[in-house]
Amino acid sequence: MRKWEILLTPYKQAVDELKVKLRGIREQYQKSSKHTPIEFVTGRVKPISSIIDKASRKNIPLDRLEAELQDLAGLRIVTQFVEDIETVVELIRSRKDFEIIEEIDYVSEKKSSGYRSYHMILNYPVQTIEGEKKILVELQIRTMAMNFWATIEHSLNYKYSGEIPADVKMKLQRSAEAAFLLDEEMSIIREEVREAQKIITTKQEQGRKL
Amino acid sequence: MRKWEILLTPYKQAVDELKVKLRGIREQYQKSSKHTPIEFVTGRVKPISSIIDKASRKNIPLDRLEAELQDLAGLRIVTQFVEDIETVVELIRSRKDFEIIEEIDYVSEKKSSGYRSYHMILNYPVQTIEGEKKILVELQIRTMAMNFWATIEHSLNYKYSGEIPADVKMKLQRSAEAAFLLDEEMSIIREEVREAQKIITTKQEQGRKL
Amino acid sequence: MRKWEILLTPYKQAVDELKVKLRGIREQYQKSSKHTPIEFVTGRVKPISSIIDKASRKNIPLDRLEAELQDLAGLRIVTQFVEDIETVVELIRSRKDFEIIEEIDYVSEKKSSGYRSYHMILNYPVQTIEGEKKILVELQIRTMAMNFWATIEHSLNYKYSGEIPADVKMKLQRSAEAAFLLDEEMSIIREEVREAQKIITTKQEQGRKL
Amino acid sequence: MRKWEILLTPYKQAVDELKVKLRGIREQYQKSSKHTPIEFVTGRVKPISSIIDKASRKNIPLDRLEAELQDLAGLRIVTQFVEDIETVVELIRSRKDFEIIEEIDYVSEKKSSGYRSYHMILNYPVQTIEGEKKILVELQIRTMAMNFWATIEHSLNYKYSGEIPADVKMKLQRSAEAAFLLDEEMSIIREEVREAQKIITTKQEQGRKL
Repeated sequence: MRKWEILLTPYKQAVDELKVKLRGIREQYQKSSKHTPIEFVTGRVKPISSIIDKASRKNIPLDRLEAELQDLAGLRIVTQFVEDIETVVELIRSRKDFEIIEEIDYVSEKKSSGYRSYHMILNYPVQTIEGEKKILVELQIRTMAMNFWATIEHSLNYKYSGEIPADVKMKLQRSAEAAFLLDEEMSIIREEVREAQKIITTKQEQGRKL
Repeated sequence: MRKWEILLTPYKQAVDELKVKLRGIREQYQKSSKHTPIEFVTGRVKPISSIIDKASRKNIPLDRLEAELQDLAGLRIVTQFVEDIETVVELIRSRKDFEIIEEIDYVSEKKSSGYRSYHMILNYPVQTIEGEKKILVELQIRTMAMNFWATIEHSLNYKYSGEIPADVKMKLQRSAEAAFLLDEEMSIIREEVREAQKIITTKQEQGRKL
Repeated sequence: MRKWEILLTPYKQAVDELKVKLRGIREQYQKSSKHTPIEFVTGRVKPISSIIDKASRKNIPLDRLEAELQDLAGLRIVTQFVEDIETVVELIRSRKDFEIIEEIDYVSEKKSSGYRSYHMILNYPVQTIEGEKKILVELQIRTMAMNFWATIEHSLNYKYSGEIPADVKMKLQRSAEAAFLLDEEMSIIREEVREAQKIITTKQEQGRKL
Repeated sequence: MRKWEILLTPYKQAVDELKVKLRGIREQYQKSSKHTPIEFVTGRVKPISSIIDKASRKNIPLDRLEAELQDLAGLRIVTQFVEDIETVVELIRSRKDFEIIEEIDYVSEKKSSGYRSYHMILNYPVQTIEGEKKILVELQIRTMAMNFWATIEHSLNYKYSGEIPADVKMKLQRSAEAAFLLDEEMSIIREEVREAQKIITTKQEQGRKL
């Protein structure tokens, strides 16, 4: 127990620091009165029981855990619109406080299950009392609808230990389509909001000239 | 500025206390390994500029503000499933740390705009350094899909000062339907999850008997 | 482990709620630009290992724990000046969100060890998902110097399992005297600050008359 | 107002990030069951009114503010023992997430007022939505007794606008001596605690050999 706690302490630290950093982005957007591409940020260290499960399922020896499991530290950025995902990805790429190891785009190409999300694996340096330690962090970026659906799928996968029966799978499929539809309708509205904003701004500038 | 701050201090206190209390419910569910009906809780004190706007729009004199504006302090409970709303409402009704003044059910009967949400107006006692003060608090309970849509509608209303043009209104209507559809598909899955859980529990009990 | 967690959940909830409530007092004072009698507030649930130790040392059966141990939930208010303790005690007495079961004044009459602090035992109602539950809470009120000394004594007691050797005891005694002296010198300054404030206020009022 | 908020946003971000980082040090010590040299960490952005005061008093033009005022962002680490200050200073020096610009040791050589504290000026990189921005941060490291006295002196300086009358100054002097004495007595106890720990550890190792 104690050993696990000591192993995971820098991961907890990385999650805490990145939560403050990513939430700070949101605040900066709000203060600059631009549309913020970030709705909310969550983070967690993988629970010990899940680590043990995954390690035994994937045949990973304990001394290879930190190198092989890329999601011991996990951050999630949830956006309102599909288009915001790209904005967030660019922002993450422009930062200098970590290195990006890998990017996987499950938004353009969803998984067969229906899962959509943009994944980035970061190499994040934590300053510990024993010196600097680089930590792998998985960052997931997705819309609220994608997030909602993924939560449901995750708990069903958990129930059926990954072997979801055909009829349930079909229902999951339908809800994935409904989530996708919601994202599409929201994208259409988003353009509306943007155009509305342009009109308002133009009017204000004309008002100043008179 | 100073006067507003002093007026709003007990409202901020009420919001802070209720956030801890309602988030505590979520934690209790998680520790008891039951499905938690609460996905997340947010809270805010109405910004001063919005208070002034609303007061002048509704012709409310400043000394009637606290009695007439029921949403100076606002809390929101967001659920995964439509069915969770009822569970949360019952929980709120059973508490003894405030009085319920009014309930409005915009879930069974949505507004013409498409808005769905369950509202409760609470009378919450705050202990201040000048004695007890009772505060009106508006509590909104809604699913993630309802919440998502309501956020969009709110910002469009703000842009168009309440007079959303017909074509935008139509698009909003369509996204409201998409949100409703997502909630329905999720409800169907929810039953699946529950049935699955029953089967699992039954199996486990049979396992014990052998 | 699981059982302990379920037992302690309402205690954690009480500590979280009271931290927000007592920190709120501090904020109210700051906004009203009065001297705040509260420097900071801390809280904790007693660690499980300490509960087991204390129960076995005092021969308390597990089903009597909640009734016999009054400090499963502990809150601490730390003040700048000795005089602030009385102000805080009055404030606590005037609140209506809990009942006071007992008060012990180790400030007027310090323990033989040198320990000084004002203790209040509260009966605090927590709203759980199974209904209201009343929780015993120990509230300690002390100055920063008292707090500093108590922290040191606590860790020495822990080292020597309560049997501190005579020479160490003497050193502890001397540091208790130094802490007491600091509190006395600070009280003298405090009067200075107050008198200074009176002069300033009088001047300002004369200024207005001219 | 808006301009100030935009100017100070990266300073607030730096303070938030460093609070999480420095509090993380404390947690790492606690988990490794060593004596933690950090009792608590606080942080603040200088209030706008104080910035304006200081700029006009020191004749600093507004476009030189960020370069000339080193304490727009301020962090404070409070320790139990004088000896812990050195440990913390070494830890700060070993970190790679900022550069140290300057160190001033008011512990070895206290100010004539009686003020004692160790100051470090850091150059901390914040990742903003417009790119990286380096921020000056003042870090103060002091014991609880030093901190207590400094708080009192600060508020008296504020009252008397820096011109504290001779008799009050004398009383401040006496309380500074009392604070110094407390630190000295505590240092003596600290050695005790350490020696006690050595004895305990030795006994345990002997126990293992038998």
